[in-house]
Amino acid sequence: MLSALDLARRIEAGTLSPAGVIDLCVKAIDAREAEIGAFAALDLDRARRVAASPALGSAPLRGLPVGVKDIFETADFPTEFGSKIYAGNRPRADSVLVSMVERAGGIVLGKTVTTEFASLQPAGTRNPRNPAHSPGGSSSGSAAAIAAGMLPIALGSQTGGSVIRPAAYCGVAGFKPSYKLLPTLGMKGFSWYLDTAGAFAASVADVAYAAAAITGRNLRVDQGTPAPPRIALARTHIWGDASEAMQAAVETSAQKARAAGARVNEVVLPPIFEDAFRAHAIIQDYEAYRALAFEYDHHREKIGPILRQQLDQAAALTADAYDAARRTTKRARQALADLMTDTDVLLTPSAPGAAPAGLASTGASIFNRLWTLLGTPCVNVPGLADKAGLPLGVQIVGRFGRDRLALEAALFVERAIAG
Amino acid sequence: MLSALDLARRIEAGTLSPAGVIDLCVKAIDAREAEIGAFAALDLDRARRVAASPALGSAPLRGLPVGVKDIFETADFPTEFGSKIYAGNRPRADSVLVSMVERAGGIVLGKTVTTEFASLQPAGTRNPRNPAHSPGGSSSGSAAAIAAGMLPIALGSQTGGSVIRPAAYCGVAGFKPSYKLLPTLGMKGFSWYLDTAGAFAASVADVAYAAAAITGRNLRVDQGTPAPPRIALARTHIWGDASEAMQAAVETSAQKARAAGARVNEVVLPPIFEDAFRAHAIIQDYEAYRALAFEYDHHREKIGPILRQQLDQAAALTADAYDAARRTTKRARQALADLMTDTDVLLTPSAPGAAPAGLASTGASIFNRLWTLLGTPCVNVPGLADKAGLPLGVQIVGRFGRDRLALEAALFVERAIAG
Repeated sequence: MLSALDLARRIEAGTLSPAGVIDLCVKAIDAREAEIGAFAALDLDRARRVAASPALGSAPLRGLPVGVKDIFETADFPTEFGSKIYAGNRPRADSVLVSMVERAGGIVLGKTVTTEFASLQPAGTRNPRNPAHSPGGSSSGSAAAIAAGMLPIALGSQTGGSVIRPAAYCGVAGFKPSYKLLPTLGMKGFSWYLDTAGAFAASVADVAYAAAAITGRNLRVDQGTPAPPRIALARTHIWGDASEAMQAAVETSAQKARAAGARVNEVVLPPIFEDAFRAHAIIQDYEAYRALAFEYDHHREKIGPILRQQLDQAAALTADAYDAARRTTKRARQALADLMTDTDVLLTPSAPGAAPAGLASTGASIFNRLWTLLGTPCVNVPGLADKAGLPLGVQIVGRFGRDRLALEAALFVERAIAG
Repeated sequence: MLSALDLARRIEAGTLSPAGVIDLCVKAIDAREAEIGAFAALDLDRARRVAASPALGSAPLRGLPVGVKDIFETADFPTEFGSKIYAGNRPRADSVLVSMVERAGGIVLGKTVTTEFASLQPAGTRNPRNPAHSPGGSSSGSAAAIAAGMLPIALGSQTGGSVIRPAAYCGVAGFKPSYKLLPTLGMKGFSWYLDTAGAFAASVADVAYAAAAITGRNLRVDQGTPAPPRIALARTHIWGDASEAMQAAVETSAQKARAAGARVNEVVLPPIFEDAFRAHAIIQDYEAYRALAFEYDHHREKIGPILRQQLDQAAALTADAYDAARRTTKRARQALADLMTDTDVLLTPSAPGAAPAGLASTGASIFNRLWTLLGTPCVNVPGLADKAGLPLGVQIVGRFGRDRLALEAALFVERAIAG
């Protein structure tokens, strides 16, 4: 994989040029893209032109290629949202996050494959760790492009588990920040209360570096040794839905973190979190029926069967049910704050197990929905694998607004696993 | 003016057809639009086609013409956001709120004039109450079209005071619901933490009817007599910036509401609300510098001088200042909830006074910013005027999520003023 930090340091030191970084990406793309299918659009000529421009200056992402999930509008690339309805669509402007990437000196290399409107309807991307398996979704192309070494940084989005799950399946670092830390203006919406922009990179320090550069915030974790975090292992009420290998991965991570000096205890989540888990689907589907109203009302026949059925059923959800789900969310947020007064982060699975075989499903977001709903920062920590060599990701969940602390804890766990 | 409720009842009774309603709008447009300039785009042929379609069914807005502020994307009309940068822009899809209007049976008659990106940069619309005066902004065309009787319903948006202020200046009802009650997907963003979609109509009952129909929520207030509300007159720390006529209008409204049976007391807002007032500008400008990054970075010379200068200065705002402003907001929200435990609504000015003379300024949003920041429902109650006959609007501010209660209280005050 291409480490964003390593490339940035080499550019800074003058031992590698932005054009040279693009060459590294191109080499991997030539070798793997035909099989993996991570890109929805690619423009290497444009990237080389931008890389040669003096306007890049000394911005922190200077010269680093970035892949943009094709759910973000871009003026210089087609933007199809994974949908036939938007074939050839070319917006007039870049989405806000893309502009922020370019302000930071990043070079958009291409658009990465999204499932249809970032839903559960799979696209054709394959998992670079084993092409017979799904890369997860909905940020399928972003996670796969990082795993295949085709990009150092990629943008994604999560409404259920669309950043953390594909990161886990592909064995890369994924960061879903606190709700709206990364702006979603110009991103196709599915559920405005849940849609959260995120990022992928090779390791935790790389994704933190990217997030820091894009936001101009103090999120880097590569400039010192992280303090041992106070971790609570949270099995959640769906622990039984995690594979044995995933359960073992989480427990191994906890043991290694403790051995490395972290305080690790266990926490049992009170019943309000089960209510909140169920509230997620109500909020998501109620809003999706409205967010995709134009497409559903005018182009229903061009919507894939999984998403179409989801929207068909969503039509029956009432405002009362939605409001009740919002109130449950509010209570659960308070309950989480109360629960974590003495805890830095939770440790929990990133997904039910390793990437599913075949491309018919992108897997389940059951270990992600609750945290998306609660708006907390989440990091997929890569480094473990099952017996077949498929990655198993563990998830660090922080407190709302404490993104840096979540990234530091994730780095600590990543090092403990590796060490 | 055209009452949405009255038209809906006549359509329901079969005494007026949807085509007949369009004729009423056309008559007013023919008489006034050349002078007022409320529309950015108009398509009467399309409206007549839709009005003749049996697909309108028995939806609650069936056959009611709606104006859409040109800050909302529309597939069937140009969408220029009041900016030269977007000349001739034609999005692929309708924004979510427009789709919801059409699902409710509403007929989009045209796009109404917005100031540039809904900022303070004025557009050319005139005030129908006195064309030598500003209609206010940024939802200039929507408020003016209602006041001139050219439309029964219009959509707007508010980031500072862009719904309540033009409603007050034009003497119509304006409703800024609780934050995100009306979805903003597909609306050009200025500040994602503040941008709030809203609506205009002739009277409080009309705008409540429109909001109920669009959202499918129980927001109608025309089906019974509103209970006398518990009102707190809130002069706020900028009371001295309100004109004598406006101060008298608010006090008159309080007296008449009390005489009609409302409980009216006074409340002094604690200092946290002054801090929150100042936090609004920091959040708005920090986000605007990012929300309009594409336009600022690629087309700066096409941005008007007022907005350009605002963005130039916004570049210096730090993430720390922004985060502090967000924390202040959170504290102020809690303080407002504590303050209103025994109060249904606040009564306060909708604007510093009547509409300013000339078109060089759309007026000040100082009496609106705080409530936009706090996400509370706000209603402009029309009915009073200054000695020159220019409207003076008073504002009802409710608790977050209690939109129906705010509308009922606004109806009560509207009737008390009229009675």
